[in-house]
Formats: sequence, C-alpha cells, structure tokens
Amino acid sequence: MPQVYAYACDDERSLFHRITIDLREPAPKEIYFEVMYAGICHSDIHTARGEWGPVAYPLVPGHELVGIVAAVGSEVTKFKVGDKVGVGCMFASCKECEYCTAGEEQFCNNPHAYFTYGVDAEGKSTTGGYSQGFTVREDFALRIPEEIPFHTAAPLLCAGITTYSPLKFWGAGPDTKVAVLGMGGLGHMAVQIASAMGAQVHVISHTRSKEKDGKRLGASYYHASGEAGTLEALRSTFDLIICTVSANDLDYGAYLDTLKPHGAFVDVGLPEAPARINLSKIILGNKILAGSNIGGIEETQEMLDFCAEHSIHPVVEMIGGEDITEAYNKVTASQVRYHYVIDTSTFNDKPAA
Amino acid sequence: MPQVYAYACDDERSLFHRITIDLREPAPKEIYFEVMYAGICHSDIHTARGEWGPVAYPLVPGHELVGIVAAVGSEVTKFKVGDKVGVGCMFASCKECEYCTAGEEQFCNNPHAYFTYGVDAEGKSTTGGYSQGFTVREDFALRIPEEIPFHTAAPLLCAGITTYSPLKFWGAGPDTKVAVLGMGGLGHMAVQIASAMGAQVHVISHTRSKEKDGKRLGASYYHASGEAGTLEALRSTFDLIICTVSANDLDYGAYLDTLKPHGAFVDVGLPEAPARINLSKIILGNKILAGSNIGGIEETQEMLDFCAEHSIHPVVEMIGGEDITEAYNKVTASQVRYHYVIDTSTFNDKPAA
Repeated sequence: MPQVYAYACDDERSLFHRITIDLREPAPKEIYFEVMYAGICHSDIHTARGEWGPVAYPLVPGHELVGIVAAVGSEVTKFKVGDKVGVGCMFASCKECEYCTAGEEQFCNNPHAYFTYGVDAEGKSTTGGYSQGFTVREDFALRIPEEIPFHTAAPLLCAGITTYSPLKFWGAGPDTKVAVLGMGGLGHMAVQIASAMGAQVHVISHTRSKEKDGKRLGASYYHASGEAGTLEALRSTFDLIICTVSANDLDYGAYLDTLKPHGAFVDVGLPEAPARINLSKIILGNKILAGSNIGGIEETQEMLDFCAEHSIHPVVEMIGGEDITEAYNKVTASQVRYHYVIDTSTFNDKPAA
Repeated sequence: MPQVYAYACDDERSLFHRITIDLREPAPKEIYFEVMYAGICHSDIHTARGEWGPVAYPLVPGHELVGIVAAVGSEVTKFKVGDKVGVGCMFASCKECEYCTAGEEQFCNNPHAYFTYGVDAEGKSTTGGYSQGFTVREDFALRIPEEIPFHTAAPLLCAGITTYSPLKFWGAGPDTKVAVLGMGGLGHMAVQIASAMGAQVHVISHTRSKEKDGKRLGASYYHASGEAGTLEALRSTFDLIICTVSANDLDYGAYLDTLKPHGAFVDVGLPEAPARINLSKIILGNKILAGSNIGGIEETQEMLDFCAEHSIHPVVEMIGGEDITEAYNKVTASQVRYHYVIDTSTFNDKPAA
C-alpha cells in the first residue's frame, strides 16, 4: 500500500499542513500514479472553508492533478507505467445509465458520479490531488498530450473542460462573437479556447488591468465594465457570453441586452445569492440563460487534445505545499494570474517550523 | 376611405365603448379586410390599463384578428377578395435586415417591427382588431385554412404562435416529455400543439379544476402544484417546460429541478417582478432558462397549417362588443375558458344605454 505525503487542512480556517496518507494498491482495472502537479480551484477553497456544506476533516482537496503512472492493475489496457495522466473532477460513476453511456458521467444518476475528494461508493472520505499519489479506475484517467507543458496541464482538467464544454455546445466558432465575462482562472482559458475555435473574442472585465494578457491570449476586444456606457455600447452584439464570475451583484439584465436574439448567456461561475433577473430580458429576443458544469470524460480528453493541437495551456504560478494557505487568500482576493499549481516535489522538503 | 365601428377605451380604467374610425384604402401592396372575429389577449389588458407604459387614448386594442378580404391593392398577388385572412402581433417590418430575411420579423432591427395597434412608421397611433376592418400589407397577412373553425382562429395568431414557436425550437416531439405550466389561453394551446408534435404532455396547474379539459386536449398527465410533494415527485422528468404563467412568486428552482440535464424551461409568460433564481439550479445539470416571443410571419403560417392538419383550435367563449369591459375583468380573475373572442357583427347592434 503506497504511503505518501499530502497537504490537508483540519477545519474551516483552512490552514494547510503536511500529513502522510495511505493509498490503495490499484485493483485490476485501476492505475496508481505519482502526482506531480495539482491545481488550486476556487471550488477547493469554498469546500475547504465549509462554504458549500459540512466537510469531513482532515481534508485533502484537489481535483486537477497530473502525474506519471507508477503501477497498473492486471486488466488495465489504456495505460502503462511511465505514461503521463491526469484526473479531474470525477473519479467514478456507474458507466451504465443513460448519461454515462452518452459520455456525460457528470450527470450519472445511478446513484451519482463520484467527485474527486468526496466520498466513495462505501461512503468513505477520499483524498484529492494535493498529494504525491492517486489511485483511480483507468476509465476515469485522462491522457496528457506531450505538447502540453506538463506543469501547466493540471488546471485543464477543471478550468479547461468547464469552459471548453459550453463553448462547443453553444456553437463558438467562425462568424460568432463571444464575450468572456471575467478574466481569471476560467476566463483566461475561455479566451484561448474560443479564439482557437475561430470566434471573435471579447473580454469584459471590471478594469483594464489584464487587457494586455487578454489580447495576447486571443481576445480581439477588451471592455471594462467599470467604465460608463460600456455595456450600452455593446447592445445586441454577442452570440454567446461565457460568464466566469460569481459576483452576487451582477446586473444580468445589462448583460442579456448585449446578446443578439437567440444569443446565450452561459454561467459557469456560481454566485452564492440568488440572481434577480427580469425575464422580459430573455423573452423579448428569445434569449437563453444556461448553466454548464464541467464535462464528461470523453469530452475532457477531446479538450486536452484540442489544447495540444492549438498550443493552449493555462498561465500558472507554481507554488510549494507550504504556500497553499497563502495561495487560498490570494485567490479569494483575485491576486492570482491565473492559476496556482502545486509542485508536489516540494512535499519532500522539511516543513517550515 | 372605409369607415367602420370599433371598440375603444379612453383611459386606464379601460371601459370600452363603440366609436367610429376611418381606415385607409389599401395601397398597391395592401389588402383591406372586414374583421369578423378578434381575440382578447392578456397583453391587450396590460396595455389598455397602462401597465406596460404610457398609452395614446382612445385605444382600439386587438392583435388577434381574422376576417374576409374586401379589397386588394393593384399589386397584390397573394390574396383576392373573399379570402379568409388574419393578422397577428405585427403589421410591418423592414423585410431587409438579417432577422427579417431569416423570417424573424419580430426581431427586425431597422428600426424595429411594427406591432399591431401601436404606432406606424410616421409615429401615428394605429388601431387594432376590436374593429370591423383592417388594412395591412399583404406580406403581413396570414391565410386561415378552411379546416380551422373560423370563429376560433383569431387566438392562434398570438396564443398559437407563442406556444408553437418554442415547442418547435426546443424540440418537442416523440420521446420527449413536455410540461405545460399553466392551463389558460396559452397553456391550453401548448397542450394541443405539443401533443400533436408527438410529445408526452404533462400539465402542471395550481389545482385540478381543469384536469378534464387538459386530458381531453392531449395531456397524458395532470399535476396540481398546490398539492404537497407534486414537484418533488417530478424531479429530473422533463425535457422541456413551457411556462405560460406570469406569477411573480413562482418557485423557479423547484421547476428547474423537474428538468432532466440539458432540459429547457422556456418562459412565454411575463412576470412583472424580477425573478429570483438560484443559478446553481441551472449550472448543475446544464439546464436552460430561455424566453420566447411570438414568431415570424412564415412560422405563423406554418403553425396555422399545422393546426389545420391536426384539427387543433382554441377553446373560445364568444362575446359581443359591449362585453369587452367585463371580459377584461374575467381574464384577470382567470375566469375565462380559455380565450374570449369578440364577434364584430355585434358592433352593429345599438349600444346599450
């Protein structure tokens, strides 16, 4: 049974420290891989701080993890020792229900998909990616293409698929105008992916502080919503808006007005408070307000291959295990550009006193 | 210049009385028809009562009108004297912009579509369907199929297209489960149309008072939202919900929970207050909240032909001109089953003292 270092927190204060955890040997259809890099997702922070409900502490978060296969079960066919692999938000599902068979394991209803660092089929708490190892069914492991710089690959498994899936579903492509609302971990991926799909990309951010980055990553236009008249000037402009922000005070009506008839505002951020929406803004103009939540395993692999083909990868800041606590504070203060990735080799260092 | 009787109101109290109005002779590409029947739409009431903004009184409402062509302009090719025709919500648009050329005149942006009883291109107030005559461009007149009982046809021009368009757009058909929320003027049309499209139709109404009608018109299931546990039992059931109610206190989250993943809640009612919507209800499950507003001229003709083919027509209560004031009160009290139609031949009677 592999025994590895991981980083955990013990309560809602989310002060991370090194622990040792035991991982199971891979079953016949499972692989065990040494985690090299793990991304920090904003949802890790909500979870660790207890903002999304009760948590079984100690908690080892992380649902963006990549590494090298170190052992394979006797019946594994997809992977071999030495392969570069990753795991995203899910580690299991029934693979038999109508959603699983359609490649949308995230909607598994039999009984449900199992989310990385949550509970397993026996109700036992599981550990996530802030760890030096992970054991997973081979059908929930993704192949990381060589073309993607490995230390940047982890955030694709959440931020990448979360933006790729709605951009594809809602038709981003040539002859479409796509607005990306927010220029953070999700937004800077949406800009690159929408641009690679052929869309004309606009960023709408509160300020122009990230304008240079936005244009470098593929945006043709950059708008500051904090400047007077910005949204009014964009009336009836967009085919699609990908909303990556989760501000509770967003003026949905003003953004819906920037859509063309039949245009879609797709939310992938998650505000805590209910949104107040004047439905006349969607009725007049046959507009669409939709949500999107990650994507299935097959589509996640497709996204990785797409990113490899188009030289897309997240912009990351590398940190060590001892930096996680501070990184959480910086993420909530919007000070990260654009995604923290934990280098798990730092877990071998002697922890600070 | 034809001079005809019409019914008008003079202020927000909406007390209707007979007046005489002048209508223009048809221009070369226009027709003049004698209006025989005019439906009362709830939006007439909102407008007449000033609830949707300032009104130029005296107001002759009505955007559901059918009659017999009595005169045609010299260049008219589609219609001849004696034809059964109708006019719905629009009487003109540019016919040149991207939306008009795509058959969606309701989104005309050059400068805008002209709505029946509103203002014309010169800014002059126009009269609507509560009248014994109407002059209109031939390309905004619809042909009323012989198979549709003529006295029932008028409401199709608003209630019919308002429900047909989203049912078609969002894919109601065999192997889909469609919920119709509300069993009124719009709802009882949605039930018939969705059923004819091949969908399994469920009505969700506050009580069971219209259950017999709902099932007769094509619903397989009838649910009373006022009974405890109704919505919970319908969790993840529907591919599509057509919401015809405009209640300000609707629990959107509870209805969104009755959608399957990728399901759409399409609103055609228009609540006055902003809706409070917990966006997690659309993000988890990739759900859709959309709006729909009438339909284009070509699609309206398609709907009329569809209704003729499938023996669909509104259930109407016939009234005379002197009954309009009372009818408004009954509509707002939900006492109409299911649509009032004004017989304009009654306009010739001596008005009550």
